[in-house]
Amino acid sequence: MSTNGPVSDEPTRLAAIVTPMFAGQSGASYRLSDGATAQLLAGADAQDDCAVFRLDGSQELVLGSDYVRGAKFGLYELGYLDDYDVGYYLAMANFSDVAAMGAQPIALLSVIRYPKAMPDEDFAQVLRGINDACDQVGAPNVGGDIGTAERLILSASAVGVVEAGRSLRRDGARPGDRLCITGPTGIAAAAQRYFGRLDTAGTRMDETDEQILLNAWKRPRARVAEGRLLSTGGVVTSCQDSSDGLKAGIETIASRSGVGFVVEEEALPVVDAVAQVAKLADIDLIPLLLGDSVDFQLVFTVPAEHVPALRESFDEAGLDFHDIGVATEAPDLLLRTGDGTTRELPGAAWRHAT
Amino acid sequence: MSTNGPVSDEPTRLAAIVTPMFAGQSGASYRLSDGATAQLLAGADAQDDCAVFRLDGSQELVLGSDYVRGAKFGLYELGYLDDYDVGYYLAMANFSDVAAMGAQPIALLSVIRYPKAMPDEDFAQVLRGINDACDQVGAPNVGGDIGTAERLILSASAVGVVEAGRSLRRDGARPGDRLCITGPTGIAAAAQRYFGRLDTAGTRMDETDEQILLNAWKRPRARVAEGRLLSTGGVVTSCQDSSDGLKAGIETIASRSGVGFVVEEEALPVVDAVAQVAKLADIDLIPLLLGDSVDFQLVFTVPAEHVPALRESFDEAGLDFHDIGVATEAPDLLLRTGDGTTRELPGAAWRHAT
Repeated sequence: MSTNGPVSDEPTRLAAIVTPMFAGQSGASYRLSDGATAQLLAGADAQDDCAVFRLDGSQELVLGSDYVRGAKFGLYELGYLDDYDVGYYLAMANFSDVAAMGAQPIALLSVIRYPKAMPDEDFAQVLRGINDACDQVGAPNVGGDIGTAERLILSASAVGVVEAGRSLRRDGARPGDRLCITGPTGIAAAAQRYFGRLDTAGTRMDETDEQILLNAWKRPRARVAEGRLLSTGGVVTSCQDSSDGLKAGIETIASRSGVGFVVEEEALPVVDAVAQVAKLADIDLIPLLLGDSVDFQLVFTVPAEHVPALRESFDEAGLDFHDIGVATEAPDLLLRTGDGTTRELPGAAWRHAT
Repeated sequence: MSTNGPVSDEPTRLAAIVTPMFAGQSGASYRLSDGATAQLLAGADAQDDCAVFRLDGSQELVLGSDYVRGAKFGLYELGYLDDYDVGYYLAMANFSDVAAMGAQPIALLSVIRYPKAMPDEDFAQVLRGINDACDQVGAPNVGGDIGTAERLILSASAVGVVEAGRSLRRDGARPGDRLCITGPTGIAAAAQRYFGRLDTAGTRMDETDEQILLNAWKRPRARVAEGRLLSTGGVVTSCQDSSDGLKAGIETIASRSGVGFVVEEEALPVVDAVAQVAKLADIDLIPLLLGDSVDFQLVFTVPAEHVPALRESFDEAGLDFHDIGVATEAPDLLLRTGDGTTRELPGAAWRHAT
């Protein structure tokens, strides 16, 4: 089957092969016999969390697909996560893409392929995890594909609707906009650093902190309510989730919007358990916060003058966000430290690390 | 991870675990801040080819997901199919679900996970196959998920729109309705019987026949035009694709609609190459036509009085279908042979064979 040509890494492959194949796709439209239309507003060429369609009527439809490693998660293989957890994770990872578009999730389509020898109860746990996550965001699992494979394979697609013109894209950040995030990052990565490596007698943290780390994997939360506030507010200029890590999220908004960012080190929200892991592992905290960590926060930009009103709407809803920096005309991604000096934003760039 | 409980086969698992978990889901609805609504008309509980939503405005949205074995296809592993072919197949298999709902495909979301060592050119071929199939049905591949895994894993979701009230379900067949199919079946199964087993000196067929068999896998065709004619005509009472085999398709319509069927053996369309394979392999032809064969035809029912007008609309479009039997009040699935006797419909039941 195989040719013997070059083997590139993922970012190179995307740039060289994938991107050119999808150029200019957005804009396609369809008309039904009764005159109803469907238009592709943002296709693969938009490189966003989801594709966006304008259908007949006023709402926009958003659609995204995410495969999750699930059974190949290190923490699953080590026994820290169970079948319920990977099902739950699958659904939330997919809803996070919908949340990042500012949309209301209306359904999940799930693909569950399982080894023939998988006990019924384990299989049922996968499905219960998916369905419970669906209940959390109020969108049903409407089916998809269930069948066998040589190992557990999990993939899904999430569907959402959003008011016309209100989907949150990655390309609208303008110089001067504030850079914000809905919560702390680095927790999922810290969990990977800690469990199976540091959770032994000498370096063990207390149970509450362990639970905080583990819950990043067991009970991730798609920021649906936050996304809805960001989209209905109408002032946010760009948004994406932090599922590839905070730095990767910032990089993507920067490159899609044609801006740079200065991130304030002291403004980055830090969970104490993550700081503890950095100490125990003897690694720098900041790259842990910014690097490859699947925390499903929303990274977004908003003109400075709108931050107070947005803050108020979040307060009213019992939600929070952190103002962590500013968009700049210069395309660089910088970190400003406590003493006022700046340096290149640390942390692994998108997917080069995996 | 694993509990040590029972391990059921797939139909048992679906009946015992999956179906109860999804009961009563259809009917859920969502309202946006501008008053736009999204209602789930057919969820997982409807057990149809796709889920169906009514959005604000007049059209219905259909959504389905299919994982394909792809790299685990026997004919791929034997070298009869290449990376382009499995990509093409992935897209068409998904569009077939949309076609079976009578909808116009508007997009594909694709999940492509590939081994790190896969050469760029092979990866590009997968993507080209997907995109060319998308071009064939006029619906773009709007992205999804691209990343690495320990082997090539292919999954996708297809999206379509259909005029309100016109989606083709599985549950509307009535006694007396004619049972029809858009074309011959058993070709995909015959290809599996032939290649790598019978394509040697003594039993080799001519190249044209070999191509007909192989094309069932290399260039499957989702019956989009046929599905659109069936839905816009407004007379079809049930429809699904034959991707689980013809008998499985008939079984599903029967059980969902609460009817039985008598299939006329002599009315079943037969491709000569398939008949040749049955002879070469010394197996009965009829079970080959009815059994587990992924041919992506549409199986549908239509009141007898509407068959002539439907035939005319198909003729005008240069398309074809075959009237192969009748729906009955009695729930049995029967085959009537040339001499007028009936027996139980042969062929493997749904998925018990895999």
